[in-house]
Amino acid sequence: MAIMQLTIIPLGTQSPSVGQYVADIQQALHREGFPHELTDMGTIIEGDPGELLALAARLHALPFAQGAQRVVTQIMLDERRDKVVKLGDKTAAVQAHLD
Amino acid sequence: MAIMQLTIIPLGTQSPSVGQYVADIQQALHREGFPHELTDMGTIIEGDPGELLALAARLHALPFAQGAQRVVTQIMLDERRDKVVKLGDKTAAVQAHLD
Amino acid sequence: MAIMQLTIIPLGTQSPSVGQYVADIQQALHREGFPHELTDMGTIIEGDPGELLALAARLHALPFAQGAQRVVTQIMLDERRDKVVKLGDKTAAVQAHLD
Amino acid sequence: MAIMQLTIIPLGTQSPSVGQYVADIQQALHREGFPHELTDMGTIIEGDPGELLALAARLHALPFAQGAQRVVTQIMLDERRDKVVKLGDKTAAVQAHLD
Repeated sequence: MAIMQLTIIPLGTQSPSVGQYVADIQQALHREGFPHELTDMGTIIEGDPGELLALAARLHALPFAQGAQRVVTQIMLDERRDKVVKLGDKTAAVQAHLD
Repeated sequence: MAIMQLTIIPLGTQSPSVGQYVADIQQALHREGFPHELTDMGTIIEGDPGELLALAARLHALPFAQGAQRVVTQIMLDERRDKVVKLGDKTAAVQAHLD
Repeated sequence: MAIMQLTIIPLGTQSPSVGQYVADIQQALHREGFPHELTDMGTIIEGDPGELLALAARLHALPFAQGAQRVVTQIMLDERRDKVVKLGDKTAAVQAHLD
Repeated sequence: MAIMQLTIIPLGTQSPSVGQYVADIQQALHREGFPHELTDMGTIIEGDPGELLALAARLHALPFAQGAQRVVTQIMLDERRDKVVKLGDKTAAVQAHLD
């Protein structure tokens, strides 16, 4: 299992606000059924690494359907094979060091 | 005001776990007094863009004090000048589109 | 067509040097046949967005075969649909503004 | 010394082309005197980590002067303290593994 952060930036849009694009991505994620969490800088998603990157390709394509002419997508994929890591485990591990 | 996401990755450490390094960064952030939020993929911080990047330089240096030989730091800085954006505003804007 | 930058960072390795891991990725890219260019911060690759992300999944898996316990992969995918962009076109466009 | 990659993305611009913005950044870098190299996905710059991030703050501000309403800047900073790394050394190290 891996954790992926996805930040999708549409360019050549009239407005600098991209909330509508991000909302579409949230709805698609909900339909897709991956555990995920929205942050101020992107969406964090849990899953198999190959499936996560295939999902990233589908989500990256969404803003074009709404008129964006160019999309820059930033992905950070973190996979461990020495232990299972699920959404929320990394923040919990840091908290354990702080307690 | 701007929102910055910071992900600090120490290399050449014995263990693949970096929770202790991240905990040090959280404690430093607490002392520095910037509004911030820990996620599974980094820390999101609110502030003036120049001050945020100066803070990033200080936080980036921390893992060396604990024995890391190499540190790769990933920063995403998002600044708007058409309106004031604070921590939590972006997720709230997306939620408003979903409601 | 799209341009993707890929930066693969193995964690929990004995040494902070990752040149051998990057060399393996270059050899795999050569076998795969995608146009690509190595920079000091990653590899830039040209192709169809979906195929590029499927390629990223294969390359991300390589360091595990050599003993890495954790791999963090950073991807930036830039796709335009208003015009065809190939490797080298973006630097050429900037140069045209400078001339 | 460290190596930094900088990718500056202006939002809320009429056109999806950002070559003019990138050209301004190249001219500023030339005036600033840091060793640097333009790639298809950003600019790679060599320098002291603190000075590089202060430079990033100055370059990040440039697109606002040309009318951008929002700027997202992506930074990757790679610092080693076990050896001196200069621009071009990392690609050379990979090439040595391939020869």
